[in-house]
Amino acid sequence: MKAKIIIIGNELLYGRIADTNGPWLAKWLDSRGIELDEIRVLPDEREVLLKAFEEGFKDCDLILTSGGIGPTKDDMTKSLLAEFTGKKLVPCEKTAKIVIENYKYYDRQWTPELNSYHHIPEDFIATPNPKGLAPGLIFIKDEKLIAAAPGVPRELKAMVEEEFAPYIDKLFKNKYAPKSRVVIRTARVPEEKIFKELCPTLWDDLSQFGLVSSLPQVIGVDIVVTINGEDSSHELEKIKKLIEKTDLHEYVWQWDNSPLPELVINEAIEKNLTFAFAESCTGGLTASRITDIPGSSKVFLGSLVTYSNDAKTNILGVKQQTLKKFGAVSEETVNEMATGVLDKMGADLAVAFSGIAGPSGGSEIKPVGTLALASGKKKDIKTDLYHFAGDRERLKLRFSEVGLFKLLQLIRNY
Amino acid sequence: MKAKIIIIGNELLYGRIADTNGPWLAKWLDSRGIELDEIRVLPDEREVLLKAFEEGFKDCDLILTSGGIGPTKDDMTKSLLAEFTGKKLVPCEKTAKIVIENYKYYDRQWTPELNSYHHIPEDFIATPNPKGLAPGLIFIKDEKLIAAAPGVPRELKAMVEEEFAPYIDKLFKNKYAPKSRVVIRTARVPEEKIFKELCPTLWDDLSQFGLVSSLPQVIGVDIVVTINGEDSSHELEKIKKLIEKTDLHEYVWQWDNSPLPELVINEAIEKNLTFAFAESCTGGLTASRITDIPGSSKVFLGSLVTYSNDAKTNILGVKQQTLKKFGAVSEETVNEMATGVLDKMGADLAVAFSGIAGPSGGSEIKPVGTLALASGKKKDIKTDLYHFAGDRERLKLRFSEVGLFKLLQLIRNY
Repeated sequence: MKAKIIIIGNELLYGRIADTNGPWLAKWLDSRGIELDEIRVLPDEREVLLKAFEEGFKDCDLILTSGGIGPTKDDMTKSLLAEFTGKKLVPCEKTAKIVIENYKYYDRQWTPELNSYHHIPEDFIATPNPKGLAPGLIFIKDEKLIAAAPGVPRELKAMVEEEFAPYIDKLFKNKYAPKSRVVIRTARVPEEKIFKELCPTLWDDLSQFGLVSSLPQVIGVDIVVTINGEDSSHELEKIKKLIEKTDLHEYVWQWDNSPLPELVINEAIEKNLTFAFAESCTGGLTASRITDIPGSSKVFLGSLVTYSNDAKTNILGVKQQTLKKFGAVSEETVNEMATGVLDKMGADLAVAFSGIAGPSGGSEIKPVGTLALASGKKKDIKTDLYHFAGDRERLKLRFSEVGLFKLLQLIRNY
Repeated sequence: MKAKIIIIGNELLYGRIADTNGPWLAKWLDSRGIELDEIRVLPDEREVLLKAFEEGFKDCDLILTSGGIGPTKDDMTKSLLAEFTGKKLVPCEKTAKIVIENYKYYDRQWTPELNSYHHIPEDFIATPNPKGLAPGLIFIKDEKLIAAAPGVPRELKAMVEEEFAPYIDKLFKNKYAPKSRVVIRTARVPEEKIFKELCPTLWDDLSQFGLVSSLPQVIGVDIVVTINGEDSSHELEKIKKLIEKTDLHEYVWQWDNSPLPELVINEAIEKNLTFAFAESCTGGLTASRITDIPGSSKVFLGSLVTYSNDAKTNILGVKQQTLKKFGAVSEETVNEMATGVLDKMGADLAVAFSGIAGPSGGSEIKPVGTLALASGKKKDIKTDLYHFAGDRERLKLRFSEVGLFKLLQLIRNY
């Protein structure tokens, strides 16, 4: 069984907004074990879309589309699906009821004069929109299913999970089974060194368990093995033993796929440790990534984003003399920032960041990409100086990732 | 002239990482005025990729690929391009020199034993990698060009801008011309109301200037008109006059496409106003979005991310009594937060956020999605209470966007 995702919208092809529905749908299909054949991002053009539907229906069993079912003139998915399936677009009483309910949820009233949301192709099924106004569409023929969702991400997600899933599961039951993954996360060793020097046979060794891929990340390289079946504990044990025998062993810091902020939160909760940040160059990014995780308030107290030097002095108590003598980006300054935030927040652990994210502000001694980092607990703070490459946003992310990695080590060694 | 983007990598199809190269390349092509036919995200599979190259070469003049040119076993773009073009993969001295330079940049030494980066298909051109190790590839035939870049976003961006651009511009000179866009940004009015009630003829009226699209955003609906030619000032004037005659006029707050953080920074710099935040529910996101903009340090002093109640009291001076009586998410608390941050930071303007981003923490009176916002200057702070829908990340973004929108109004009215 194979699926195809068709993302529709001119605005995606001229780069005004980046599609996030494709990646989300890919993950959703993967969690069910449905193989994804392709993600296509296509313009609002009749011939192009008709051809894409045709090819999709030929190659795949399940086609999910995003976008083009709204009320404006460029929304043509519905009429093109009618044309493609040879069905007439007709007013449907059942659909009108769904639309009325959709509107009611937003305290609004719908009448047929407002738009033609109640028109659907004959033999299509309209579905409620749990988080929006336009109904979704489903069409089943020859054991194949095509489902059209709105382009607004929150509407698409809710519709796929709540409305499309039952139809998909019913039609394709027994045709797919979940897969699982063993993820070997390494740090401080380049991809090449892993597969050429440390373990030249690793790729082949791992391939006996499933499809292998290697993904360089900020902290290091993730090696991923995709395994058939929901339970990979057996394979995990075998792979762990295999890695233990190699020199890669000491570089492995994690055996699953949780993002660093989630790991930090979970392990801090487990050890009942609170933490706080003092951020300059990362500008609140580290705090924002931590607070993306539900439950972070149990252990995360806050972050003092002191972007100006005055703020560093007034809020964190960094000495003006230190700033003058060593500069804002220095181990001396971050040390005082960390001391300050531990003091003000009363946290068990703290990380302080000061660096140069660029594009300007660099010098020969402290080029763009320099990061001064302080981490530790009261009266036990360590500082480091790093140099990274990248543009401003990338550097902020790297800085923040390195700080969180330090924090994880602190939590683990507490 | 048409272009096609082919993004290669299994990890993108099982949703482990979301492709960002497609959207970036789309924007890059658009800035040159090159029409993008499609973005395809495809797996590392021989038949699939060969077919995609073939179709791309048939339909389009320019094909850009991302991914699959690294050193690991699943990197097959290079050998498949050789197969597709009927060329042999051979060691190339010129390429070896490029690889040596790529490695030198990272203080590393390359030898042919390390990998086969120096093997390229005959008649292909290898390009330097300004931010990585693997060289890029270019092949020109029958007035068509195919260019293969690495999948790592920073490497791809640098390679496309610095290495591919001259080849593309040379081959297709005079075949494309930049387009421009008039963007009408509205707030507080639904898409439907705009096109059905306020200005039923707007879509058609705008269509005489170019392709029209309508994009619902957090703050409101953006209406975009794509115009041929680099200079759209003439069309902008005409469209402005057209809108002035409609009831939509009062809902328009911006006539270009700058993201809110950029607008806030630019207009604050223009008026020489400093600002700071006190963030609870947004957890540093607002500060992080502001500090993504180079030059933000000129006007942004910092943000006190007080996630815990103790931090609100200790850092911002919010009275314990206020927290007890009205709760952390209340107009009273954000008022004190804003007063506190203005005081501590000495900023001209401040915005304070406290809300419930969910999934837990909501109640009947204050459900998930509630935001208390305070904004203003010393002794002149206004508060508002909002209710939004969405998941945690979406809500953080909406909260932050609403706060920045308020800040923009404050700057404009100062």
